[in-house]
Amino acid sequence: MLGNFLTLTGNVNIMITKAYGAAAAHRPLEPLGIERRDAGPDDVVIEIAYCGVCHSDLHTVRGEWGGTLFPCVPGHEIVGMVSAVGSAVTRFASGDVVGVGCMVDSCRACEACEAGLEQFCSTGMTGTYNSPTPDAPGHTLGGYADRIVVDQAFVLAIRHPREHLAAVAPLLCAGITTWSPLRHWQAGPGKRVGVVGIGGLGHMGIKLARALGAHVTGFTTSPEKRQAILDLGAHDVVVSIDKAAMKAARESLDLIINTVSHSHNLDPFIAALKRDGTMVMVGAPETSHPSPAIFPMLGRRRSLAGSMIGGIAETQEMLDFCAERGVVADIEMIRMDGIEDAYARMLKGDVRYRFVIDSKTV
Amino acid sequence: MLGNFLTLTGNVNIMITKAYGAAAAHRPLEPLGIERRDAGPDDVVIEIAYCGVCHSDLHTVRGEWGGTLFPCVPGHEIVGMVSAVGSAVTRFASGDVVGVGCMVDSCRACEACEAGLEQFCSTGMTGTYNSPTPDAPGHTLGGYADRIVVDQAFVLAIRHPREHLAAVAPLLCAGITTWSPLRHWQAGPGKRVGVVGIGGLGHMGIKLARALGAHVTGFTTSPEKRQAILDLGAHDVVVSIDKAAMKAARESLDLIINTVSHSHNLDPFIAALKRDGTMVMVGAPETSHPSPAIFPMLGRRRSLAGSMIGGIAETQEMLDFCAERGVVADIEMIRMDGIEDAYARMLKGDVRYRFVIDSKTV
Repeated sequence: MLGNFLTLTGNVNIMITKAYGAAAAHRPLEPLGIERRDAGPDDVVIEIAYCGVCHSDLHTVRGEWGGTLFPCVPGHEIVGMVSAVGSAVTRFASGDVVGVGCMVDSCRACEACEAGLEQFCSTGMTGTYNSPTPDAPGHTLGGYADRIVVDQAFVLAIRHPREHLAAVAPLLCAGITTWSPLRHWQAGPGKRVGVVGIGGLGHMGIKLARALGAHVTGFTTSPEKRQAILDLGAHDVVVSIDKAAMKAARESLDLIINTVSHSHNLDPFIAALKRDGTMVMVGAPETSHPSPAIFPMLGRRRSLAGSMIGGIAETQEMLDFCAERGVVADIEMIRMDGIEDAYARMLKGDVRYRFVIDSKTV
Repeated sequence: MLGNFLTLTGNVNIMITKAYGAAAAHRPLEPLGIERRDAGPDDVVIEIAYCGVCHSDLHTVRGEWGGTLFPCVPGHEIVGMVSAVGSAVTRFASGDVVGVGCMVDSCRACEACEAGLEQFCSTGMTGTYNSPTPDAPGHTLGGYADRIVVDQAFVLAIRHPREHLAAVAPLLCAGITTWSPLRHWQAGPGKRVGVVGIGGLGHMGIKLARALGAHVTGFTTSPEKRQAILDLGAHDVVVSIDKAAMKAARESLDLIINTVSHSHNLDPFIAALKRDGTMVMVGAPETSHPSPAIFPMLGRRRSLAGSMIGGIAETQEMLDFCAERGVVADIEMIRMDGIEDAYARMLKGDVRYRFVIDSKTV
């Protein structure tokens, strides 16, 4: 596939990068040569070591959500080493171990950006892939690649031991997506937290809620996962298809992080909240959930909320917390050319709990 | 109808009270003689002056929610004068002007009761009507009557001028139902609050949010109500069936109190919330609302919550606040025998904004 690269080498100022993605809709992922911009004054050039595989990658590259811009290179759980920095970069130097998550830019001026919540940027954050950008080809290209160039404001420092680096990658999306609501809704000692759906996001939710000092209940539809969920750090496990178990769990939780992104009945989980409890949805289903019953929300002043990834400052906070506590994801390493098999297994829930691409194989 | 009274006068310790209610399902409201217990040590005997008419009265007395216990005497927006007190009553004396709202008892021992949130009592509050009680006939009978006997712990002091007393009655349900979420979600100066549905609850929501110092937007489906809603204290009015107006209102509000109790599309109102905004439902529809879209909740960390009346301490706080600021409901006085006509008009939304029964006519 080297032909892909050679077509782009006319301009000596453009870095040609090996990547993996879909050249067009309905095409499988394949090796692509992509351009990365030369490092500007504020840019950090990162040689990617590992990239986690998120459900969003699959939905986007297959065009399932609509709006996919091709060629599409997914990947937003990126870790690697800095190989060069621009003249104005103060926070990073060559050789630093760094990460890039779901965003590579935002307006940096609106109220949300000022508050460190760039994911809610009023003009829209620039996603790590599939967002408009002045760079070729006009939209961002993600971490299924061997190199990426990112403004230092959106680069995270990684302080974990180097041998854990692959398992750090999923913190950049799965980790922050559960960390942000856990912190915003004040999970910690004395609080009882439930995590619904124990996949890539959910397994991080359990590890992080436990590390924050909360009492943690895992909810799963798979009775055979019980021991594995306890091993992740849950204090107890409720099989959510067991009506008696769900009844016994009523009014027991202050906070639920619901990671399930397919349509399901929310009412039994809302019933598991105490008075003033909140269930936070971090996945959006393709078809609506059955409408939640309002009376159980009134009768205990419960809330249903949404949360989406997290800001740069809180991502750094989470990474530092995890480095200090030795928290990483449970991963299965794959080669880049195994991505389609990995997607197939991910769709069956056959991964504990996150695939991570070894970027040497891109 | 005096025959109803005479049948119960054999026991000299029982007060026979004139009331108005339904003797059985599918019977119209009619005069009834009911028993009130003799005042125990902690009881306050109240000669009812006025009683507000709430939608719940109608649903309950007509058995529309199921579970109605007959005979049914509705009414939980009660104001009147103390005529006698039990030996242990310290907070009230004969001649005091007092109120009784939606509750007359609770367990007083659970965590919610300890927190002053008796409406969320873990064993269930005792409603002012239609709740089990040791008193005859085995369930509570409400304020469509000329007298009621209530434990002092559930009696509220009213400090408004006497000439406003009839217009104070609706504060006991419509007032506290909107006050409690306004306070819990911190409506006040610098906050922008929306109120959806400008009826009995909604008109109090506008008055209270304005008195608390918030910027207030009224949402109505009735363009002809615009001036009336501004007159209540709203800073602006949005006609919610006007798509362009709803689009212009996007991301403008910190808090919405949604008083509409019929099924409706929540999404345009959720879209009117800023990041971290909350829409609080205070009505429960008979058929579910269309399922709210999850992505707009994720994308701005918005919440959908429920709230139900308010605790005794916060009801007193609200009454004192309203007495100080001169806040009362806008009412239309009716005679007791006009109740069926009032219900018919209430169902058409033909009341600005609350009917109140002159209890002299019971």
